[in-house]
Amino acid sequence: MKPRILVIIPVSTDMWNEMTLKAFRSYLTSDIELDVVNLEYGPPSIETDYDIAMATPFIVREAEEAEKRGYNAIIIDCFEDPGLHACREAVSVPVVGPGEAALHLASILGKRFSIITVGRKYVLRKPTPKIYSLGLANKFASERSIGVPVLDIGGRRDEILGLLIDEGRRAIEEDGADTLVLGCTGLMGFREKMEAKLGVPVIYPGEVAVKLAEFLVLSGYAHSKLAYPKPSPKPLKLPT
Amino acid sequence: MKPRILVIIPVSTDMWNEMTLKAFRSYLTSDIELDVVNLEYGPPSIETDYDIAMATPFIVREAEEAEKRGYNAIIIDCFEDPGLHACREAVSVPVVGPGEAALHLASILGKRFSIITVGRKYVLRKPTPKIYSLGLANKFASERSIGVPVLDIGGRRDEILGLLIDEGRRAIEEDGADTLVLGCTGLMGFREKMEAKLGVPVIYPGEVAVKLAEFLVLSGYAHSKLAYPKPSPKPLKLPT
Amino acid sequence: MKPRILVIIPVSTDMWNEMTLKAFRSYLTSDIELDVVNLEYGPPSIETDYDIAMATPFIVREAEEAEKRGYNAIIIDCFEDPGLHACREAVSVPVVGPGEAALHLASILGKRFSIITVGRKYVLRKPTPKIYSLGLANKFASERSIGVPVLDIGGRRDEILGLLIDEGRRAIEEDGADTLVLGCTGLMGFREKMEAKLGVPVIYPGEVAVKLAEFLVLSGYAHSKLAYPKPSPKPLKLPT
Amino acid sequence: MKPRILVIIPVSTDMWNEMTLKAFRSYLTSDIELDVVNLEYGPPSIETDYDIAMATPFIVREAEEAEKRGYNAIIIDCFEDPGLHACREAVSVPVVGPGEAALHLASILGKRFSIITVGRKYVLRKPTPKIYSLGLANKFASERSIGVPVLDIGGRRDEILGLLIDEGRRAIEEDGADTLVLGCTGLMGFREKMEAKLGVPVIYPGEVAVKLAEFLVLSGYAHSKLAYPKPSPKPLKLPT
Amino acid sequence: MKPRILVIIPVSTDMWNEMTLKAFRSYLTSDIELDVVNLEYGPPSIETDYDIAMATPFIVREAEEAEKRGYNAIIIDCFEDPGLHACREAVSVPVVGPGEAALHLASILGKRFSIITVGRKYVLRKPTPKIYSLGLANKFASERSIGVPVLDIGGRRDEILGLLIDEGRRAIEEDGADTLVLGCTGLMGFREKMEAKLGVPVIYPGEVAVKLAEFLVLSGYAHSKLAYPKPSPKPLKLPT
Amino acid sequence: MKPRILVIIPVSTDMWNEMTLKAFRSYLTSDIELDVVNLEYGPPSIETDYDIAMATPFIVREAEEAEKRGYNAIIIDCFEDPGLHACREAVSVPVVGPGEAALHLASILGKRFSIITVGRKYVLRKPTPKIYSLGLANKFASERSIGVPVLDIGGRRDEILGLLIDEGRRAIEEDGADTLVLGCTGLMGFREKMEAKLGVPVIYPGEVAVKLAEFLVLSGYAHSKLAYPKPSPKPLKLPT
Repeated sequence: MKPRILVIIPVSTDMWNEMTLKAFRSYLTSDIELDVVNLEYGPPSIETDYDIAMATPFIVREAEEAEKRGYNAIIIDCFEDPGLHACREAVSVPVVGPGEAALHLASILGKRFSIITVGRKYVLRKPTPKIYSLGLANKFASERSIGVPVLDIGGRRDEILGLLIDEGRRAIEEDGADTLVLGCTGLMGFREKMEAKLGVPVIYPGEVAVKLAEFLVLSGYAHSKLAYPKPSPKPLKLPT
Repeated sequence: MKPRILVIIPVSTDMWNEMTLKAFRSYLTSDIELDVVNLEYGPPSIETDYDIAMATPFIVREAEEAEKRGYNAIIIDCFEDPGLHACREAVSVPVVGPGEAALHLASILGKRFSIITVGRKYVLRKPTPKIYSLGLANKFASERSIGVPVLDIGGRRDEILGLLIDEGRRAIEEDGADTLVLGCTGLMGFREKMEAKLGVPVIYPGEVAVKLAEFLVLSGYAHSKLAYPKPSPKPLKLPT
Repeated sequence: MKPRILVIIPVSTDMWNEMTLKAFRSYLTSDIELDVVNLEYGPPSIETDYDIAMATPFIVREAEEAEKRGYNAIIIDCFEDPGLHACREAVSVPVVGPGEAALHLASILGKRFSIITVGRKYVLRKPTPKIYSLGLANKFASERSIGVPVLDIGGRRDEILGLLIDEGRRAIEEDGADTLVLGCTGLMGFREKMEAKLGVPVIYPGEVAVKLAEFLVLSGYAHSKLAYPKPSPKPLKLPT
Repeated sequence: MKPRILVIIPVSTDMWNEMTLKAFRSYLTSDIELDVVNLEYGPPSIETDYDIAMATPFIVREAEEAEKRGYNAIIIDCFEDPGLHACREAVSVPVVGPGEAALHLASILGKRFSIITVGRKYVLRKPTPKIYSLGLANKFASERSIGVPVLDIGGRRDEILGLLIDEGRRAIEEDGADTLVLGCTGLMGFREKMEAKLGVPVIYPGEVAVKLAEFLVLSGYAHSKLAYPKPSPKPLKLPT
Repeated sequence: MKPRILVIIPVSTDMWNEMTLKAFRSYLTSDIELDVVNLEYGPPSIETDYDIAMATPFIVREAEEAEKRGYNAIIIDCFEDPGLHACREAVSVPVVGPGEAALHLASILGKRFSIITVGRKYVLRKPTPKIYSLGLANKFASERSIGVPVLDIGGRRDEILGLLIDEGRRAIEEDGADTLVLGCTGLMGFREKMEAKLGVPVIYPGEVAVKLAEFLVLSGYAHSKLAYPKPSPKPLKLPT
Repeated sequence: MKPRILVIIPVSTDMWNEMTLKAFRSYLTSDIELDVVNLEYGPPSIETDYDIAMATPFIVREAEEAEKRGYNAIIIDCFEDPGLHACREAVSVPVVGPGEAALHLASILGKRFSIITVGRKYVLRKPTPKIYSLGLANKFASERSIGVPVLDIGGRRDEILGLLIDEGRRAIEEDGADTLVLGCTGLMGFREKMEAKLGVPVIYPGEVAVKLAEFLVLSGYAHSKLAYPKPSPKPLKLPT
């Protein structure tokens, strides 16, 4: 029987399912099955700690369910890696966070990375808590947003490509970046055109997550259960 | 009308309500009202990232409700500070995390602190991600657990006192700590006896949280809404 | 008998005494007495390490005297916290540094703070040794001076308010700050107007110091004498 | 035509070629060719900075040669990653260092890793410069050697397995590690037995390096040439 | 006219003057004059922040006086470097701190240093604020005291040598040190015997300070006056 | 017999020998002999990791040879300190790196240093791996290049002086530097004029290296052989 990876899109809309399924399957190079689900409950997009809080229990539920149904690895398809540690406690099959995976790859491919993302417009030149907790602060150059809401990135693709290239160029020229990371798994399909224009690696986290999940499945590696121990059984009360 | 503080005990049991109410009211020195609620849903105790994930949406809901009902400050009564950042996004009244408050006080009162806590037995001499993200790694000496489950600390108090003193002494003698922080808000009532035996400050996070909340209410300070912006309204789907 | 706090204004002028007494008493919310003294000897203002060196022995003397006279806590009323560690060695009652207290509060209320201060004009975007030794470098955005000498801030208040707001805005817009800390305890009375204009917390260190001292007095906490041991008696020679 | 990966074994002996070829080919899951070469010149093993210095020019030469001959990726088969940065400057095809790759994977799979290695006996609980320059110091627990010279690890396999398990257990119990990394690419074939005994991930760098190289080849990612620019042509004098 | 260096022994006793003069002159290799003074006022030894506070104004006074009298460099003869920054503000001739100089040399000669010192017995394996503020935390292994009061080290030399060797060996074997620094400028004359027994560099800060001062005098380097600006003139009140 | 220092100019051209010999001898103030050699093989200049890789074995060879011929100290005359650690393993006499020496001196003389160097034009405001591995990141302000190739700095001296002053001024005004370090040992003869214009210390690494080597020779200090152990003898194959 084929190994199977489940991609949990941690939002309560199925608008990303089809394009994610198509893109993520294209990244696989082994005979592995890959499925996509979105959440039944939770927010329609992940942009804040509030969104993460509201989505996380439902992500964990999907992860527990996936393990029961025999999936061999799980991807939480969001750059923010919502619920990553909780899911790793809940299950023993590997759980991959695209943000974590992409930022480690960026640390390998270059000396200083910038994150180019969506949402409200900003430029940040100090590492965020996420970067500090990953331990990658020494390699951080900046984080820049193009100022387009997450829910708009399905459309306006030409405009978005232009904005991504503009901010990427600023990250290179003003912030000293030599490697770029797209800060949202919804930004699929921009990598190649950005690389052609900017001449540096542009990492799409979804692709890295799929390949890491594939590797973990095939090699038998998973997160350390000493680091993420199984919670002892307790009577959890939830709305029904 | 009196200012009011709401203490959210982030577990789905009311076993801590009465003793917390009594203790926390005793810490107030101004004419402030203080109420306690526990969660309707969620886990019975917070010991893992899984527990945090499962409790957080319900904590945020209580915080939103509290602001609507006119509370002037909110305490999330757990050393792990579950949902602290999400609540700060959700509301504008100050939200206090006992862990954050206690560790900052420890950094003021001494040069190197150890956390003495409950749950499975361990000794940790490297800062945890929580400590790194608070930025207090330079002051961290160790974290030590007495090996008693959270749900047992209501009883066995003499035994627990002895264990806390033992681990506290080891933290001082073996790890170089000069200040101790109790790593669970359920550990009320041990501070004075520990200080008498050990001769160093023993910080009970619940007390620090109440006093910080009182200060914030009286002084008009609250968290920066630039740091914790209000989430834009989106259709959140939740089980009913 | 009422608890008593002594505020040591660490300069050899009494020009700040009256306004400090009035402001600091207004921050108290418990039945605590608060007195103010300035130094008999030392510099008229604290702006350099030289000033700190020259003021410190006299600060320590005042602290020792205060403890003998029964004060329950001591505030060294200067953002630079001159003599803080030496005083903590000398006495057992809590000694509060407004700089330390304010920067820890800033780390709680926001994600990145800037210090807005007086003295010669400058902008600093790398943490200073003070910030490193407090361990708060991860939260530091910048330090900016409005370019007005300390001894001028008693007058020119409208002009100074304008300058503080200007630099505060630059800290927010150019340096990524979400929380501001006034870098001089002489800057009382500006907080509210700055907050109204800038929309972020503006921390006045004097207020935080008073409330921390009050808390320490009422809760019985003090600095760790293991961290700050009493100097063994030695024949100290001083000019008479 | 198939993509091809060249493994450069950076020592002047062919004693590792056959077993490396067999093991590394077994890690591939795509239709990729993998070849192995060792150095014509240089030291017989890499244990010191001296060895690295003496091997590096010959590694770089092999890398340049490999790119000319059409290889699509290069692995420098040594945990020390000798010549990694120089090779990345010299060529445009991806160059993979097993040490870098394994330590990043360890940072993903666990919270604190220890390196278990060979050579003279030692225990190190402070991060090494390699760890600092990778930026992974926050996740480092310890580095421990079993005290067996590199050139002896081909034989004595049962004894070595026992020693690796012993030091691995000490790393877990005494140093707080939850994930182990084998500190030498010659330690192939021990992973599974160690994991079975110790219950934590045991990362063999050779396997991770092959999979990272495979991913880079298939995805088209390579190191940033802005980070590792091509040296300008200069008359290099070398012995003939 | 010969260049001249003044050594300020920052204590109110002349018990160290003669042996310091003899030792320090022996370190000079150029035609430079070297004089020694002790303080008229202040504590008899420097062991605490309290001692530093009480000695500092008198150190600064001696430094100002020395510059007026034409000295070309100043050494503050104590490992704690009391008043170093204040003196650098006060004068333009170079001011050398033996602690700072020795710890930088240790960082050059080895990979991990331990400080072996006198005073109350302790072992510290976390960097102190001094180490953090020098920025040398990555190279710090430990600080160990032999438990002999500073004022006793003039006598009991054989016993002290034995204790220094014992603690030095523990630093090497237990803490991973490869280089030792004597943590008190009173510990002259032990270096050679310790090096012979322990086989690692044992740095005596007094020697390093003299040679750094000599270099600064001969090369014309001094501290940056942009980093240590001259305090603006203000009416300083001091006891007469 | 006089002590002797060998300066290894780590490039395969003798174009720097004469001017280096003249300048470096002028820095000596003791009766010490100083000789200069360049490499027989290797690159004509050191600008990249590739150049370092290609030069290093020949540097190590010269160092081994120098020790055999009785030299008492060795300077590797390049700011990049190529082969520094390998040479320290190979020999027991002290080996000095101008970059390491100059950056530690800069950390003593000021609070924030910038490196002003040659090669392709750039400005870098994040510490480089070299700075991190030296542990001096807290004191780093920036690194700026004047955009002139290394091999051109022999001529165009007036133009280069102007460019160095311009970038130095920008480092002071825009990056907050108070101390400058010249980032290439070929930049001899500019220090005094730069200091006169800029009013801050301008450190020429060659001078610092000579004085450190002289001190080490005269004082008997050398690098720790516990930190840099002698490689065990192994059959090294090299082209003949």
